[in-house]
Amino acid sequence: MASDRIKGNAVIGQSGGPTAVINQSLVGVVEGLRGGLQAIGAVNTIYGMRNGVRGLIRDELVDLGALHQDRLDLLAMTPSAALASTRDKPDTAYCERILAACRRHDIRYFFYIGGNDSSDTCRIISEMAASSGYEMGCFHVPKTVDNDLVKNDHTPGFPSAARFVAMACMADFLDNVSLPGIKINVIMGRHAGFLTAASALARRSDRDATTDGPQLIYVPEVPFDLDRFVGEVEEVYARKGRCHIAVSEGIQDKDGKAIGATLIKNAQVDAHGNTQLSGSSALGDLLADLLKTRLTPAGGKPPRVRADTFGYIQRCWPDASVIDRIEARRAGRQAAVYALQGHLSGSVAILRTGKGYDGEPYASTFERVELQDVAAKTRHLPPEFLHGTHDVSQAFLDYCRPLVGDLPNFERL
Amino acid sequence: MASDRIKGNAVIGQSGGPTAVINQSLVGVVEGLRGGLQAIGAVNTIYGMRNGVRGLIRDELVDLGALHQDRLDLLAMTPSAALASTRDKPDTAYCERILAACRRHDIRYFFYIGGNDSSDTCRIISEMAASSGYEMGCFHVPKTVDNDLVKNDHTPGFPSAARFVAMACMADFLDNVSLPGIKINVIMGRHAGFLTAASALARRSDRDATTDGPQLIYVPEVPFDLDRFVGEVEEVYARKGRCHIAVSEGIQDKDGKAIGATLIKNAQVDAHGNTQLSGSSALGDLLADLLKTRLTPAGGKPPRVRADTFGYIQRCWPDASVIDRIEARRAGRQAAVYALQGHLSGSVAILRTGKGYDGEPYASTFERVELQDVAAKTRHLPPEFLHGTHDVSQAFLDYCRPLVGDLPNFERL
Repeated sequence: MASDRIKGNAVIGQSGGPTAVINQSLVGVVEGLRGGLQAIGAVNTIYGMRNGVRGLIRDELVDLGALHQDRLDLLAMTPSAALASTRDKPDTAYCERILAACRRHDIRYFFYIGGNDSSDTCRIISEMAASSGYEMGCFHVPKTVDNDLVKNDHTPGFPSAARFVAMACMADFLDNVSLPGIKINVIMGRHAGFLTAASALARRSDRDATTDGPQLIYVPEVPFDLDRFVGEVEEVYARKGRCHIAVSEGIQDKDGKAIGATLIKNAQVDAHGNTQLSGSSALGDLLADLLKTRLTPAGGKPPRVRADTFGYIQRCWPDASVIDRIEARRAGRQAAVYALQGHLSGSVAILRTGKGYDGEPYASTFERVELQDVAAKTRHLPPEFLHGTHDVSQAFLDYCRPLVGDLPNFERL
Repeated sequence: MASDRIKGNAVIGQSGGPTAVINQSLVGVVEGLRGGLQAIGAVNTIYGMRNGVRGLIRDELVDLGALHQDRLDLLAMTPSAALASTRDKPDTAYCERILAACRRHDIRYFFYIGGNDSSDTCRIISEMAASSGYEMGCFHVPKTVDNDLVKNDHTPGFPSAARFVAMACMADFLDNVSLPGIKINVIMGRHAGFLTAASALARRSDRDATTDGPQLIYVPEVPFDLDRFVGEVEEVYARKGRCHIAVSEGIQDKDGKAIGATLIKNAQVDAHGNTQLSGSSALGDLLADLLKTRLTPAGGKPPRVRADTFGYIQRCWPDASVIDRIEARRAGRQAAVYALQGHLSGSVAILRTGKGYDGEPYASTFERVELQDVAAKTRHLPPEFLHGTHDVSQAFLDYCRPLVGDLPNFERL
């Protein structure tokens, strides 16, 4: 098999927001290369690029080949990107510098672990290499807590973040029962509401928002209306004396404008044109203030209103879903397998082959999809995962529950 | 022994902010009574009051006697207050209503699980019962994530919250290494900085703030100065290209004025006169905005600055410290033992009898202290736990580490 494989070095990079399992994928690629292209002599050195492509063009490479398997195993269990990450969005000139760096280091196998922006970077580099006659395999390994890659049942990183959100909402709901009031939790997700939707797993009895919180769930896929929001909170609060709410940081008005982005003082914009949503709690604080003002009875006391924004810990909390750990590792290995098989490019996609509910065990498999079929595309919560304007469907709960693993069994009086 | 014990019913209440282990203490009191005063016939019914004393005066009682031990065990592992809590601060008229409710239900043993405000409620009721000739034992079981009860080495609830803070800072520090910038984490603690100080456990090598974050730790015990803060961040950022900061929600200026309390729009004030600090992220957002403005070089790009406020999940996260679970349960049982021994009042205090470092295994014991010695007093971080203006000492790390239990072993490249 080695005879028809081009010989050279391999490089691996991590890009975008880190996750609890992005290092599983890094280790998976290393393992896949060691047992594959390196074993047959087609790959010499396995490099890691520091800070994604930003480090590559600066020749900031580390040799991953010397790492003992014991260290790799520990690294895989460590959250956040071990090679460090970047939010750089390479334009044509930048991509030319990337390609020059690849030539400089005789890199013939390029692996990039990231979300839809990263798959697009991978696609551009792949096309540029091909058109310039430089033979190099370019492979994308999926990673995003937002779960917004097309062609995938779900993406590595999401199950672990969803697990954090579900656990946090379970515990915080009981806190809200304990000291009743209105509680808003703001959850990550710029365009897709999957992670916010996972808050519904906090309910003991799947759909019963009348018993368990969160009673109201707001995702970017459903246009957000402040007046309707106030009315819906008022209704729950009047009925129960408390209200537990999950809100996506990415909620948008009817014109598709993100409500949070307009609120952050000196909000920062990254190279992809994404305005900062995380790392500020302006949205939660605005909604809390609105409810305090609007729900105060004439001459009466305002309700107790609190807002928390889960922030960065939801993407790096070190209690990853077991399925997520396994799949993220396999996704990395799989990319190395596609290279071994002689493919010149591709993205690893996760397909579900066993539902994980209705008595059918959960199972998944992987398939190679074309970079251009994934690159820069955003998947949203499909309509069948939504229920009305402020809830998710049973279909979503069935879909999501097997991914997050066992949740604690709480007792109540 | 039963002959000289007054016979009647017992009631248990939970008060103030809930914790991950407050139900351990509830279950501990029930177990202690069952095996003690109830076993000898001095206690008939074991009641729980819904929402603390607020439920008691409204006759909102539940019978805890019928609960099977299996359910008690599950309840003990459930975070947040199972009986629900209250922030009511009883004045004399309110306390008279509490005493009337106790007479109405023939309650002769009163147990209140809470912080320093709750121990004061317990003290007032105890004194009022004594002066009105109503024989009733009043016992306080300690609980507070703030760790600010005097006479205690530490308080149930703190080790688990400290564990959450340490884990969150470990993971978030790696996130900050991965995507470098300035990151602020705001941590609970109105007057005492113990919980914020626990962020230092996130560092691999105890004292080495130059290698691991958080590099800067700000507690209420050290007057906070905005200009000094900006300078200290600037120094770390210039040196490392990133900066990881832990800030207590209760930081105060040199006049003792809480900086966060002035920032929350429509901040709410509870019956104890405490202005809302949690459930808003105004402090973190203010500090982030200040740094963006002040650290932007002339004509240059502002640094990446993000702020998270850990919020309510730090007090109810369902991965409690094992020591905390055990001690919270024992503290509840111990209060029932003091009643069995014939004491008419008291607060349970935890003393440390084994250091838990320098080769000496951790061990603790319990002793009865007078209610007035604990009530309404606040313990602060002692000077020997502080190091300079923005760090904690090795003595604090030695003190805190045994309480939180094992932390994950992260690997880095």
